[in-house]
Amino acid sequence: MTDEAQNSQITAVGNEMSASFLAAKKRSDETLAAIEKNPGKFTMLTGDRPTGRLHMGHYFGTLRSRVEMQNKGVHTNIIIADYQVITDRDTTEHIQDNVLNLILDYMAAGIDPEKTMIYTHSAVPAENQLMLPFLSLVTESELHRNPTVKAEMEASGHALTGLLLTYPVHQACDILFCKGNIVPVGKDQLPHIELTRTIARRFNERYAKKNPVFPEPDAILSDAPEIPGLDGQKMSKSRGNSIMLSATAEETAKLIKKSRTDSERRITFDPINRPEVSALLTTAALTTGRKPEEIAEEIGDSGAGALKMYVVESVNNFLAPMRERRAELAQDMDYVRDVLAEGNRKANAIANETLEQVRDAMGMCY
Amino acid sequence: MTDEAQNSQITAVGNEMSASFLAAKKRSDETLAAIEKNPGKFTMLTGDRPTGRLHMGHYFGTLRSRVEMQNKGVHTNIIIADYQVITDRDTTEHIQDNVLNLILDYMAAGIDPEKTMIYTHSAVPAENQLMLPFLSLVTESELHRNPTVKAEMEASGHALTGLLLTYPVHQACDILFCKGNIVPVGKDQLPHIELTRTIARRFNERYAKKNPVFPEPDAILSDAPEIPGLDGQKMSKSRGNSIMLSATAEETAKLIKKSRTDSERRITFDPINRPEVSALLTTAALTTGRKPEEIAEEIGDSGAGALKMYVVESVNNFLAPMRERRAELAQDMDYVRDVLAEGNRKANAIANETLEQVRDAMGMCY
Repeated sequence: MTDEAQNSQITAVGNEMSASFLAAKKRSDETLAAIEKNPGKFTMLTGDRPTGRLHMGHYFGTLRSRVEMQNKGVHTNIIIADYQVITDRDTTEHIQDNVLNLILDYMAAGIDPEKTMIYTHSAVPAENQLMLPFLSLVTESELHRNPTVKAEMEASGHALTGLLLTYPVHQACDILFCKGNIVPVGKDQLPHIELTRTIARRFNERYAKKNPVFPEPDAILSDAPEIPGLDGQKMSKSRGNSIMLSATAEETAKLIKKSRTDSERRITFDPINRPEVSALLTTAALTTGRKPEEIAEEIGDSGAGALKMYVVESVNNFLAPMRERRAELAQDMDYVRDVLAEGNRKANAIANETLEQVRDAMGMCY
Repeated sequence: MTDEAQNSQITAVGNEMSASFLAAKKRSDETLAAIEKNPGKFTMLTGDRPTGRLHMGHYFGTLRSRVEMQNKGVHTNIIIADYQVITDRDTTEHIQDNVLNLILDYMAAGIDPEKTMIYTHSAVPAENQLMLPFLSLVTESELHRNPTVKAEMEASGHALTGLLLTYPVHQACDILFCKGNIVPVGKDQLPHIELTRTIARRFNERYAKKNPVFPEPDAILSDAPEIPGLDGQKMSKSRGNSIMLSATAEETAKLIKKSRTDSERRITFDPINRPEVSALLTTAALTTGRKPEEIAEEIGDSGAGALKMYVVESVNNFLAPMRERRAELAQDMDYVRDVLAEGNRKANAIANETLEQVRDAMGMCY
């Protein structure tokens, strides 16, 4: 669901296909088919941690499909999960800048704030209040059993905070406050969605048998193609292997040109043995709609220099309209702030209504 | 802080005096002296779980001192902790009735809603939102280390819920949203206050070095006398040994008369060997301001029947003005609801302002 989610989603593609994953995939495909038939019946929740600019991995991993869902007529909601920044770090440095730039990235990529609600986690108290009743519906051992929380904790090298431990519960708040019934996730995040379903079910059983308050959301497993970083590793800002949506054409060219390749002159597509060259080919393929093998064949003995030139051109052509739109939007940051203010206003209206239903169901009306 | 707190507070009196307890008691005495000098500098937070009516244990354990603090000019706030009802149970049955009757008990005992803010936990979203940043300031192991949470979990016979595990954190929200700087607690709850102090300190250090947002609250250890139940055990509604503030004089007489005593006719005050008789003497002493030994001497060989008659008269005389006021107030439940609505309005105003300061300090202003 968040930027990490996008990364783990990429990792999940090509992983071993367990029986439970196959079942989830089948269910996801059924949901996708149902969305095609009647998109207006679905509310989707996705989001990002505002820890930096978005890169092409985000675009192909999640942004593109968010835009597709939005344009199909699905109710699309994007949470900028600013409180998730502090699940595993001690500072909120640059958060304002990161949030505003996320919104620029979204709109540059085709998110239309008239159709998609963009809001920040910290701006919606009634959503956050759901933490209290929801925490009563899960046991401590259920929180501990979550494999993703453990993995994220270990990856962060930070002690497990109360906020990271309860992360699946505030994710349930994010999804359920707006009655989200579809959530695009990576394989690793399936246990989170399972917990959200459990919370929704237990709440309804305990307090709202006759008139259920919450839907049990379905996971949508993306089959988005993996776009590796320029070094063939996972695309990640901290590795310096990422092409940012907001970079200039010159910065992009420089980054691609300095990327390492191997000593073999002839260009072939071989992700296992030639990760760097293959990463360049995949990048060119995704941004041109061609097959990587076909591009390799075309470049042939012209070598890495020619390949890089081709990648620079493909990527910059592909990103040019987004970057133009982004630069235009960045001229009027007041408008960007207004987009967020309006999204937050809408989110508060929805959250207040849901919280009222929760209070009603629990008899907390005095 | 809550009704359980009141009970544990009672238990704490007379327990072994550890070095850390003595240090806490010394600090508490210093705080009490500071309150005497300048009550207007202090904001107190106390509260109850709305799980039933209040009894005399609550009155002597906490209610009486709340009224004293209120009348001294301390800013007194009472939270009706409705979400705490579900830390260890699966239902909110009778919650509306319990909440409204708590307010009746408060006002009957002398709480003045013009001076004391009475509000419900579920009505203040901005207070509850503090859970998110606060959970990031504590580690999972700090949550687990809390001895009171473990004890309450074992006492409840219920699996440890996420809500009970994080209970010290939402208690920190209760205390800190209104910048509470004094909290009356029992010895068992000292670790909770310590965690609240830790959260306040870490928040200030991390996000508000120049202009601290939160005070580090001090615990006030009550030296309220213990009032045992009529059987000499801890006063508890479920044991049927409690004199409810809201009971009629007849119900009270009946309860006292049917209480068990021992076979020795001569009345003596001996809490260790004669818990039932001594409980009756303590009850009479507290409600008359006399010493239990003196009453025992006076009754002497007249036996348990005479003692019970004396207790009935003392208790009913003592409670008569409260009960009269309670019955009067109960004639106008709309007024009681208005008191709560006004308390909730005030609490929301305070919580919104505090949350704004928290967002400012964290840079979450977009």
